Amino acid sequence: MLDTITFPKDLRKFSPQDLPQLAQELRDFIINIVAVKEGHLGASLGVVELTIALHYVFNTPEDLLVWDVGHQAYGHKILTGRKEIFHTNRQLNGISGFPKRTESNFDTFGTGHSSTAISAALGMAIASKLAGITNKQHIAVVGDASIASGMAFEALNHAGMTATNLLVILNDNAIGIDPSVGALKEYLSKVTLDGAPETDNIFEALNFNYSGPVDGHDLEILLSELERLKNVSGPKLLHVITTKGKGLRQAEENQVAYHAPGKFNALTGDLHPKSKEVLPPKFQDVFGKTLVELARKNKNIIGITPAMPSGSSLTYMMDAFPERAFDVGIAEQHAVTFAAGLATQGLHVFCTIYSTFLQRAYDQIIHDVCLQKIPVIFCLDRAGLVGEDGATHHGIFDIAYLRCIPNLIVCAPRNEVELRNILYTAQKGLELPIAIRYPRGRGTLIDWQQGFTEIEIGKGIELKKGNKVAVLSFGTMATNVVTAIERFTETSEKLAIGHYDMRFTKPLDEVLLTQIFNTYSEIITVEDGVKAGGFGSSILEFASEKKYQNKVILMGIPDTFIEHGTTDELQEMSGISSENIYFQIKNVL
Amino acid sequence: MLDTITFPKDLRKFSPQDLPQLAQELRDFIINIVAVKEGHLGASLGVVELTIALHYVFNTPEDLLVWDVGHQAYGHKILTGRKEIFHTNRQLNGISGFPKRTESNFDTFGTGHSSTAISAALGMAIASKLAGITNKQHIAVVGDASIASGMAFEALNHAGMTATNLLVILNDNAIGIDPSVGALKEYLSKVTLDGAPETDNIFEALNFNYSGPVDGHDLEILLSELERLKNVSGPKLLHVITTKGKGLRQAEENQVAYHAPGKFNALTGDLHPKSKEVLPPKFQDVFGKTLVELARKNKNIIGITPAMPSGSSLTYMMDAFPERAFDVGIAEQHAVTFAAGLATQGLHVFCTIYSTFLQRAYDQIIHDVCLQKIPVIFCLDRAGLVGEDGATHHGIFDIAYLRCIPNLIVCAPRNEVELRNILYTAQKGLELPIAIRYPRGRGTLIDWQQGFTEIEIGKGIELKKGNKVAVLSFGTMATNVVTAIERFTETSEKLAIGHYDMRFTKPLDEVLLTQIFNTYSEIITVEDGVKAGGFGSSILEFASEKKYQNKVILMGIPDTFIEHGTTDELQEMSGISSENIYFQIKNVL
Repeated sequence: MLDTITFPKDLRKFSPQDLPQLAQELRDFIINIVAVKEGHLGASLGVVELTIALHYVFNTPEDLLVWDVGHQAYGHKILTGRKEIFHTNRQLNGISGFPKRTESNFDTFGTGHSSTAISAALGMAIASKLAGITNKQHIAVVGDASIASGMAFEALNHAGMTATNLLVILNDNAIGIDPSVGALKEYLSKVTLDGAPETDNIFEALNFNYSGPVDGHDLEILLSELERLKNVSGPKLLHVITTKGKGLRQAEENQVAYHAPGKFNALTGDLHPKSKEVLPPKFQDVFGKTLVELARKNKNIIGITPAMPSGSSLTYMMDAFPERAFDVGIAEQHAVTFAAGLATQGLHVFCTIYSTFLQRAYDQIIHDVCLQKIPVIFCLDRAGLVGEDGATHHGIFDIAYLRCIPNLIVCAPRNEVELRNILYTAQKGLELPIAIRYPRGRGTLIDWQQGFTEIEIGKGIELKKGNKVAVLSFGTMATNVVTAIERFTETSEKLAIGHYDMRFTKPLDEVLLTQIFNTYSEIITVEDGVKAGGFGSSILEFASEKKYQNKVILMGIPDTFIEHGTTDELQEMSGISSENIYFQIKNVL
Repeated sequence: MLDTITFPKDLRKFSPQDLPQLAQELRDFIINIVAVKEGHLGASLGVVELTIALHYVFNTPEDLLVWDVGHQAYGHKILTGRKEIFHTNRQLNGISGFPKRTESNFDTFGTGHSSTAISAALGMAIASKLAGITNKQHIAVVGDASIASGMAFEALNHAGMTATNLLVILNDNAIGIDPSVGALKEYLSKVTLDGAPETDNIFEALNFNYSGPVDGHDLEILLSELERLKNVSGPKLLHVITTKGKGLRQAEENQVAYHAPGKFNALTGDLHPKSKEVLPPKFQDVFGKTLVELARKNKNIIGITPAMPSGSSLTYMMDAFPERAFDVGIAEQHAVTFAAGLATQGLHVFCTIYSTFLQRAYDQIIHDVCLQKIPVIFCLDRAGLVGEDGATHHGIFDIAYLRCIPNLIVCAPRNEVELRNILYTAQKGLELPIAIRYPRGRGTLIDWQQGFTEIEIGKGIELKKGNKVAVLSFGTMATNVVTAIERFTETSEKLAIGHYDMRFTKPLDEVLLTQIFNTYSEIITVEDGVKAGGFGSSILEFASEKKYQNKVILMGIPDTFIEHGTTDELQEMSGISSENIYFQIKNVL
């Protein structure tokens, strides 16, 4: 059946009785491709029936459908013209792993971060209302983890006062990437267990017409409910219960691991056995394991994550010291101010957030932490280019948006040992807040679990002396620079090139910089963040302030959104690969 | 009685029967000083009884009290050691108009932006729990407008699952700065009207022990309720009904005007009559009135504000086209993505937000607007130094945090006419989003309501030709530069100085800059934003990119939080007054 479907109009030719079979085919199609090509598995498997039902009942793309946290939208992509290219998912020049407006007119709104769908759909619904269009449906599909985020509440609170044709589908599977948390989740569980729809529930309090809960894998019920809701006016919410990973036993049983499982055996469902090769650790694990190590000695250490315990490896701390580690749900704003509240009482609070998601808590960093000089320790995970997750997930703005804030220390360790040492330094009791950024994935050192050495705040380090060109790197870009320098073989060239790991873009090591500016005529800065306002820019500001006339060349992410691909491919495209650095140095020499 | 009170321990010597008299004295004290010194009146008058009751019942500062949106905390300041210096409120070197940790140990958390108090108090409560302290109370006082903000919901959602000693006081007066909006507000009104406590209400759904509503001006009830709640374990919420402006008839009757009424007659309560002098308009009014003018011709124009209709002057649009203007409440995140949703349907959406509050929607600007190239028009009100509201309210980070985002146009009109023209240009249908920043308060032109001229995006303008020093200004800093240049009287100096209004920090006018860098040896940039990563930094990046060796000097806000004072005083302190600019030019010449 799936073979005959290119667009939803093809789907609508089938009779309702045929749809369970289609669901099976769609599920197999997703499993077969994701098993080989990797990607987000569990969320999309959980909404196979819902996806079919929505496109069957509603007149997409005329009716506007918004998928919150778009990694649940694989089925949607396959049914809306992208079946033949679905195998290019998340690859360079392939389709995006998230809905994307430029990719299809069925993708009404780009979604990668959570909890945006209700706001966007409400905007669309009000636009229709203003245009006098009454026969258009506007649907937001939102998970239970996402609906507990503040932004979703803001949208519900607004929508409840409008007489717009808005349907929110609450896709309740009790899990985001990790299991859902919070009082609302408990409340929803009660609704689910009690079975019967509540007459006075939290959504009705917000003036939504509530119905459900219904079984999200029962196509007959879904079709009849959606059909019925077409004719219910005003804002309404359908509570649908689904199972994440539905249809693949292992994915249902181990929902965290099968959220994005990497390659697996499509037939058995088994994950590929881990390589026996000894590899350098993931930075996440260096963070997670080191935090536990430090927490054993320092009773004041607290760990916080907004809904990313497994991704950030805060799980180690949660297992070792459950009372001192907090998963606050998808609530970055609360996470930061909660951290500040804890820190006012003398605790050493490590707040670990993906760089791209910390954008959600920008005001809180400024207003609740830095302005008040509260020494919260921010661990910015997945800083820099993250690879296949693409434009919505790269952590490339943090240097620029953080270094403009007074009182904040901003640093980036170049390797695992440096990460350990700055974590150690931070928990000794800094007087100012600090942001420590590190990338997704593995470092370079096998032997990383060494003793701790304190790092002097604001001190850079000379990695290689030279006399003509100084390369100043920030964070793990040091590795690319080292590789680039290794390519030079002529002695005169070797002697000419200096390499400095500045470690801190704020405060800058002005002593070291003075020495550099007095020694080298040419300076190249390298960072895996945007050039506009970033680390290199801080060096330009230093030079301007001190009236140096040296030539300074910035290497970093150009002023454009970077799409998906492998991190290596994207670094090359962005001009920050070791190859790019080599040619830039060569050019200057 | 008030004379005998310096700290809450003095207050606690009185008998409960004495407290209504004290409330009267405290109210008079606030009125008498704010009438002359200006400040936030209504909110603090509304919580006089609550303030007394809290400090009477609880053992502050051992018990930790957090005032959300701290402008309600005047009574608190007066009762906690700052009565004698309260007349310095909001003045340079005087006390802050908001709670501030460095000012008093009774100010447990700095609050200026809304909805942070529950997160902070929860952090404190959990810190106490971890320390095994069981006799400490942790209280957050939150208004009904603030509790509807997403961040507060996130905190409630987390707190509800903790067994912490947290008391949230919902100060329900049905108004923030403007009347509260949203479904939750309607819901609270119903609770209030019905009188009886609901058994299955929204706070109980979030696992809070709910009590109330109680009359927040009845000290006897407040004392007994707070006393009772001391012994209720776990998270609890007391719903208190108050009247904003209580005790001053005009303030009760006209709550918006008396939020921060300026000077008034303390005896009669009347506002001082407005000066008959013809003054240049406020930038807010230029925005508000121009928007209506444009909206009359362009049916696609929409206006959005998150809870600042009167402050931003969106009220003009709300009056003229109520169906096309939206106050979404304190919900900046939702406001931005809602705007994006509307704009996907072809509408021209003006989203007006104070610069400092736009920090709350940073991720949404990046992820929901710029990444998707959705042409939302952001009007950043109160950009630059805002004066007496101080560090929590200055709009000084926006240039840095916005210009690093690809696809976003960032501009700052230098005067009222330019603001009108860029608003006109924006609604003609840009292909990219734009941020238009302008300051609080009055411009310089009496005759501002002229016909419209389109502004070419990314084009700066030469205001004065020179041959040695070029001063590049951004936005209304042009006025300071003009004043500075006027002080030069020698012909050679006059001839040396050029002045350019760059208008856009993104995209930069590279043609004009090339001409400038080829003509002038020295370049001075001037902005009323932070130097780190700001407008000047964009000029340094241009120079680096194009390999110019000219000397570039940046003038802007230094890397420190700027406190309160008049805008003139703060500009002088920050080094961006016309005097500062004059001396900088002089120095270079």
